[in-house]
Amino acid sequence: MTSTLSAELWPDVQPEAARRLMLAAVESFARRGFHATTTRDIASGAGMSPAALYVHFPSKAALLFAISKSGHEQTLALVEAVVATQASPKEKIRELVEGFVAWHARRHTVARVVQYELQALPEREYEVVAELRRRIEHLVRTLVADGVAAGEFVVTEPRTAARAVLSLGVDVARWYSERMRKSPAALGREYAELVLRMLGASTS
Amino acid sequence: MTSTLSAELWPDVQPEAARRLMLAAVESFARRGFHATTTRDIASGAGMSPAALYVHFPSKAALLFAISKSGHEQTLALVEAVVATQASPKEKIRELVEGFVAWHARRHTVARVVQYELQALPEREYEVVAELRRRIEHLVRTLVADGVAAGEFVVTEPRTAARAVLSLGVDVARWYSERMRKSPAALGREYAELVLRMLGASTS
Repeated sequence: MTSTLSAELWPDVQPEAARRLMLAAVESFARRGFHATTTRDIASGAGMSPAALYVHFPSKAALLFAISKSGHEQTLALVEAVVATQASPKEKIRELVEGFVAWHARRHTVARVVQYELQALPEREYEVVAELRRRIEHLVRTLVADGVAAGEFVVTEPRTAARAVLSLGVDVARWYSERMRKSPAALGREYAELVLRMLGASTS
Repeated sequence: MTSTLSAELWPDVQPEAARRLMLAAVESFARRGFHATTTRDIASGAGMSPAALYVHFPSKAALLFAISKSGHEQTLALVEAVVATQASPKEKIRELVEGFVAWHARRHTVARVVQYELQALPEREYEVVAELRRRIEHLVRTLVADGVAAGEFVVTEPRTAARAVLSLGVDVARWYSERMRKSPAALGREYAELVLRMLGASTS
């Protein structure tokens, strides 16, 4: 069960023990916060000894970095894939919001750690993640500007609008829970409609 | 300096020592999270002894509750004041978003604790705060529905739209910082325009 979930969350991480530790770390960080979590908590959450943890990660911060970097790489990949298509800016924004919102809903526990524990990263690791964030923001800003240039969007402040688009998606991680009747995909579709209106696109 | 800020944040809290402890608690919770903060950290941040802290607050959780309750009461008061006016739904939403967004930008450190440390509240205290949140959400949902009924808004899913309105404002606390060139008031105005479009209101 747990190993299926961790493989789904981090298909690129090997071996399975490392993924298991990342999952235990996500659970502890989300429940108690980074600073109140010990490597012993994480190891025992993964059914391992602290010594076994250090085989895969040199520190608690290294675990946070692995989780944060992977989360940002996944959302960046999602944005890049949408931007690379031949669709119109309007269709790209729709697909981007659907994917970004659904990711933050489906992965809300991971996403909370990814989005709210940034300050706990050591300086060099923080810079790596900050660069991924800048790339995501740049792609969305450019897409909004492209839509304005193409006459599809009417936006007074493209920078603020791009921030609002991402902000709506990120905040889903704070409030979404499995108890909600709306699926991540359905929420993504409704949010895409709201965002298109926000950008002044005619919606059908 | 600190006492001026704490009086501005919590004009209703007396004596000044209690406000000073709340401010020290906000700073510690925001930096390290609730669970990693000790009452000793908070007392020393306020320049007081742990014993002096207990004169005002029986526990760390009581401090979190005081901060969280006050933050929610302030935003509820803001929403209630707007809703009570004779303005049209469109003008009410504009004023509500301007005020709500500016509050989360200006008070971003307090707001982060208010919005992100909810789970750390003991059950009874959590219920008090959850009730304040339900009232805020209910007022915004009703306002959106009123705008639809008045023909001022065009919204397919009023519940999702109301959530998005609040979500945009709350998430400002995560990303806003004093280093930004945009003032809380200016951000509030730009966000109000975006929200009005999102709700399908004609903007002038």
